[in-house]
Amino acid sequence: MPNINSVAPELQVSQWLNTLRSITLADLRGRVVVLHAFQMLCPGCVSHGLPQAAAIHETFPAADVAVIGIHSVFEHHSAMTPVALEAFLYEYRIRFPVAVDRPSISGNIPHTMELFGMRGTPTLIILDQQGRIRLNHFGRMDDLRVGAMIGQLVSEVAIDPNSNQEQEQAAAGSGGCDDDKCAISDNMGSANA
Amino acid sequence: MPNINSVAPELQVSQWLNTLRSITLADLRGRVVVLHAFQMLCPGCVSHGLPQAAAIHETFPAADVAVIGIHSVFEHHSAMTPVALEAFLYEYRIRFPVAVDRPSISGNIPHTMELFGMRGTPTLIILDQQGRIRLNHFGRMDDLRVGAMIGQLVSEVAIDPNSNQEQEQAAAGSGGCDDDKCAISDNMGSANA
Amino acid sequence: MPNINSVAPELQVSQWLNTLRSITLADLRGRVVVLHAFQMLCPGCVSHGLPQAAAIHETFPAADVAVIGIHSVFEHHSAMTPVALEAFLYEYRIRFPVAVDRPSISGNIPHTMELFGMRGTPTLIILDQQGRIRLNHFGRMDDLRVGAMIGQLVSEVAIDPNSNQEQEQAAAGSGGCDDDKCAISDNMGSANA
Amino acid sequence: MPNINSVAPELQVSQWLNTLRSITLADLRGRVVVLHAFQMLCPGCVSHGLPQAAAIHETFPAADVAVIGIHSVFEHHSAMTPVALEAFLYEYRIRFPVAVDRPSISGNIPHTMELFGMRGTPTLIILDQQGRIRLNHFGRMDDLRVGAMIGQLVSEVAIDPNSNQEQEQAAAGSGGCDDDKCAISDNMGSANA
Repeated sequence: MPNINSVAPELQVSQWLNTLRSITLADLRGRVVVLHAFQMLCPGCVSHGLPQAAAIHETFPAADVAVIGIHSVFEHHSAMTPVALEAFLYEYRIRFPVAVDRPSISGNIPHTMELFGMRGTPTLIILDQQGRIRLNHFGRMDDLRVGAMIGQLVSEVAIDPNSNQEQEQAAAGSGGCDDDKCAISDNMGSANA
Repeated sequence: MPNINSVAPELQVSQWLNTLRSITLADLRGRVVVLHAFQMLCPGCVSHGLPQAAAIHETFPAADVAVIGIHSVFEHHSAMTPVALEAFLYEYRIRFPVAVDRPSISGNIPHTMELFGMRGTPTLIILDQQGRIRLNHFGRMDDLRVGAMIGQLVSEVAIDPNSNQEQEQAAAGSGGCDDDKCAISDNMGSANA
Repeated sequence: MPNINSVAPELQVSQWLNTLRSITLADLRGRVVVLHAFQMLCPGCVSHGLPQAAAIHETFPAADVAVIGIHSVFEHHSAMTPVALEAFLYEYRIRFPVAVDRPSISGNIPHTMELFGMRGTPTLIILDQQGRIRLNHFGRMDDLRVGAMIGQLVSEVAIDPNSNQEQEQAAAGSGGCDDDKCAISDNMGSANA
Repeated sequence: MPNINSVAPELQVSQWLNTLRSITLADLRGRVVVLHAFQMLCPGCVSHGLPQAAAIHETFPAADVAVIGIHSVFEHHSAMTPVALEAFLYEYRIRFPVAVDRPSISGNIPHTMELFGMRGTPTLIILDQQGRIRLNHFGRMDDLRVGAMIGQLVSEVAIDPNSNQEQEQAAAGSGGCDDDKCAISDNMGSANA
């Protein structure tokens, strides 16, 4: 898992939705980047995470903040196909670009999820204008805190990012979904982990 | 469409979930029956209709009230397959029996949906102890009203059901989903309509 | 405290608001009566109880269901005066009749609250068409249950009320308010208790 | 009304609650200051504004952000007395310091409300670390935006505050409360206006 304040690895994407062209994180230097990793059948993503990401997308100017969804499926793969995702995005009126996280050949955890050390969905990752990871949060996070971090990063010009970082430790968990989130369980680990 | 106060036609089911055996409405005579027709990608079903059905299921004794979900897919058929539904019910912790509405061979509208003259999802249908349709409501309906009808029907022993009925007229609509519901559009009509 | 199914005692009222004439429970025979006892500074009353009472008032025909608020102040008497209550009802747009519970001369608990054995606010009391107490509930109660009881009582013509009653036992409590309700504490007991 | 980016005038306070000593804005230089002006019988203040102020108080370190309530009564003066306010703060568990806005002798609008050109309640005013007004907002404002402004102001060290300001124009309004806010009406204007 990349450390807080290290430059984020590139997204590993098998397909893009809601955008005509591929997007790289390198393209987005100079803007704050909000990555929302979700699964379409994760209740906490549907009730809280995706509405929050949509609100961020509507609230902040695109020149300041880029919002990208990442569909990181680690369970029920046959239910959450790209075709189903497309219908889901249409019905839930999600307008921002969404990347389908590239599936692993040898395990359940898709590549971007593994690269960023995500523990499940929803995960909120925020990058500063230099592309460094400043937040990597699994589960629900309230709008005041998310807003504060975005407000800070948008206005920040200094180089030294030694404040307000948060890093969730990848604790071994029991897996499964509760109202807020879906956790990767130990036996889902990818073969190459 | 069957009239209010007429005996409900039987459900047309291709598959049952959350129950080991098939259920017929005839089996349920003597109990009030709450039918909740939904689609797993209908936002109003997920945010309002299914939680309401689950609350009815938890609130009333099973000896008095039977709750049955009907997965009536009339759009995005390739996304809302029985396999996807099974994952959805698991993640959303829906415990009551759910019928997969039998698909039409010649059109988009599945058979039970057509038989009951439903206009979209969510649709709430309530049957009295004699199996007669006493409510057939498309869209959101608040808990006070739903509770009042159930309370009345549970306590009712008389034969004459000439009160409190409600019938939604099947007006031609533009189709599509809003926050509360998904409507069948005109060009979705089944071939045999 | 009157037993469930006994005829309710009359309200003890020092002042009426939102009505030009006094109301007695005897006047309301033949209708279901919903009594909502509250305090204007009780958070659970403001966030849940009063909106529920207002929804009942809007949902059911006045010929079937009468809704009456009872301002039963047992704490902060100098803050919750009739003048303050009038401003409160105006700002919160409460339209149904509200009785000011007659204050006790010798203690904190007003007379109607004492007569009905209420344990605090909000308390929801429901009378059947014969004026008998069928529910006496302290704290939050969800709309499905409240609706079911009203639906049953409105449709009921029989004499025998031996079902669905609920009686809260007057357990000694610690007093004070939580998010849902404000409880009478032991040392608030009226002098004549 | 002071301009955005001008230094805020001092609060005019007749009484403090939830603090043992008086507070001046001058004391708070070096911290971001959040002023929440409310009335205890303003529905939008109770349902949205005060919970937001309490959340800000809990979310941000006191060394970074100071939260102060201002009870600015411009209607129903006999209902919203300091005694009633004290009971209200206790029951609603408001912990941050609250100033009673000094009443006008000659009109309805209290002095701090007039000095800041507030249009009603709730009003959210945010000062930067130099004590300059950076936001003066009447009505509801969502947590993402409020969080973003606080996050920016907390991290800001530069002198030039020429961004993200917002100023509500004091438009003549009809007065009265809706779900979100209570507006001063024209005929409430203070005599010295």
